[in-house]
Amino acid sequence: MKISVKVPATTANLGPGFDCMGMALPIYNVITIEETVLPGSGIEINVISTSGELDDVALEHIPLDENSLVYKAVELLYNSIGQTPSELKISIKTSIPVARGLGSSASVVIGSLIAANELLGRPADEAALLSIACEIEGHPDNIVPAYCGGVAISSQEDDGSIVYRKLQWPSDWAVTVCVPDFELSTDIARSVLPKEVPMEDAVFNSSRFGMLIHAICTKDKELMKLSLKDKLHQPYRMKLIPGLNKIMDNLRHIDSVLGCVISGAGSSVLVISEKNDLDEIKNIVSDTWLSQNIKCDIKTLNVENEGAKIISNDE
Amino acid sequence: MKISVKVPATTANLGPGFDCMGMALPIYNVITIEETVLPGSGIEINVISTSGELDDVALEHIPLDENSLVYKAVELLYNSIGQTPSELKISIKTSIPVARGLGSSASVVIGSLIAANELLGRPADEAALLSIACEIEGHPDNIVPAYCGGVAISSQEDDGSIVYRKLQWPSDWAVTVCVPDFELSTDIARSVLPKEVPMEDAVFNSSRFGMLIHAICTKDKELMKLSLKDKLHQPYRMKLIPGLNKIMDNLRHIDSVLGCVISGAGSSVLVISEKNDLDEIKNIVSDTWLSQNIKCDIKTLNVENEGAKIISNDE
Repeated sequence: MKISVKVPATTANLGPGFDCMGMALPIYNVITIEETVLPGSGIEINVISTSGELDDVALEHIPLDENSLVYKAVELLYNSIGQTPSELKISIKTSIPVARGLGSSASVVIGSLIAANELLGRPADEAALLSIACEIEGHPDNIVPAYCGGVAISSQEDDGSIVYRKLQWPSDWAVTVCVPDFELSTDIARSVLPKEVPMEDAVFNSSRFGMLIHAICTKDKELMKLSLKDKLHQPYRMKLIPGLNKIMDNLRHIDSVLGCVISGAGSSVLVISEKNDLDEIKNIVSDTWLSQNIKCDIKTLNVENEGAKIISNDE
Repeated sequence: MKISVKVPATTANLGPGFDCMGMALPIYNVITIEETVLPGSGIEINVISTSGELDDVALEHIPLDENSLVYKAVELLYNSIGQTPSELKISIKTSIPVARGLGSSASVVIGSLIAANELLGRPADEAALLSIACEIEGHPDNIVPAYCGGVAISSQEDDGSIVYRKLQWPSDWAVTVCVPDFELSTDIARSVLPKEVPMEDAVFNSSRFGMLIHAICTKDKELMKLSLKDKLHQPYRMKLIPGLNKIMDNLRHIDSVLGCVISGAGSSVLVISEKNDLDEIKNIVSDTWLSQNIKCDIKTLNVENEGAKIISNDE
């Protein structure tokens, strides 16, 4: 039996929604799990780029041993029903750039879990899969939209369960994803964050996140412009993304721009805007980065609304 | 000329919306400002209880000198148009209990500003009045609903301006206001708060506040039950409100209860619930407090939707 699952990229945080908000994007990894016939052959994991080559960059971030996210995910699922995984061939076909704040690891974790769950005859329900994924990822912000698509707020309760709600993204708001040619590991991006923050910064973020949710629910453009601000993570991470300050400054003059935020832990940058002036927005970002010798790939994308999906199931 | 303004009580915070959310309640102070005829008679401020007596308790919290909130509010308004207030008789008829976290001071500030602005021929618009009020109060959470009624999220921008949005409170959610027989000054309730908070508490509050706004916008009872939680102010203030922990514990068993939070800086407590079991809720709160020798006044109130209103203008 061989199961393939297609899982979207995700962008987390959206400014003030640090660790509790994310959006799925139509860039996909495909995770395939196959039961191998040879007993004792163990678990084999391969990472393949879209061109069919072994993907060295992705390999670096998805180590092929017991520590790998994939292995952990599959093992936790098997353990949850009192079993141990063995004799599996797992391949990951990557289109989501790694270490760019686009939820590559969440996609791999969710894809492995869904595929393994299918292989096992679906012992785990959605709640169980999301809990296991959150145990690995640490936060539900990426895993929820990777799983169910769309734009979602999420939290992990004391009992480990994940609560989430999907929001209706206003159809005339564009999401432009700007991926620079340098990586930024989530570990490094987390290590620069303080353990304690000023009370006023905490209040600021709560207030902005409440405003952000209201702005999305009511399609309130003016409120959105004031909401995409953050004091909990972005100020500490700015120095890790050269040129970002300048990009934000330069975009401030474009009336259709609602905000510019770090995608996840970076290095990618997200520009939320109305649907006019998109070329100007792209030029500003690429010119600003180019002036610092940074090349980038910029795309305006729709919100991905389907989430993870089993695309083939060859029995 | 004599202007009277009726201003509602307000309950701020609602758990995670610390310093950025408030709700107007149908309990009112009436602030009357009259130009006196005698030049040089200065500014006279009286506080009168609803029974027509001078209100000693309220007097303690509204000192009758230049430091009083009323004097400050009126002075800032006059100064904003290059004038100085003089020869005014101001009376405050109080029904809002003072030092109970019900926005008594915000009501007095908003009422004085609106009355004085009327006397002056309305030189200040809403934005200017709210900015002045926020300069005095420090936070917009009470002043916005005191001014415009309803349930509102609010923030103060870097330029001093106040941004707010009103939310539609679900009509089948009840608000039960429990006012104990002891006072709690906002200064004391603020002094127990730390200057810095753990990052995870800040993230927790952002996430809950976002969920709270979404729960209200979509009338989502289950989400509301998870949202009315706070780690920024309530844990530090619990010790100032004897019995509150017990009240929260005892209410947890009532299915219709959506949450129990401190009203503003306390001492009052707010129970948000569906509209059944209201008697049981009231009994639990009053019995728990009574077991600690605390008497209380408990009322289920509708959200006040009109806000501050000029009720008489005798020229």
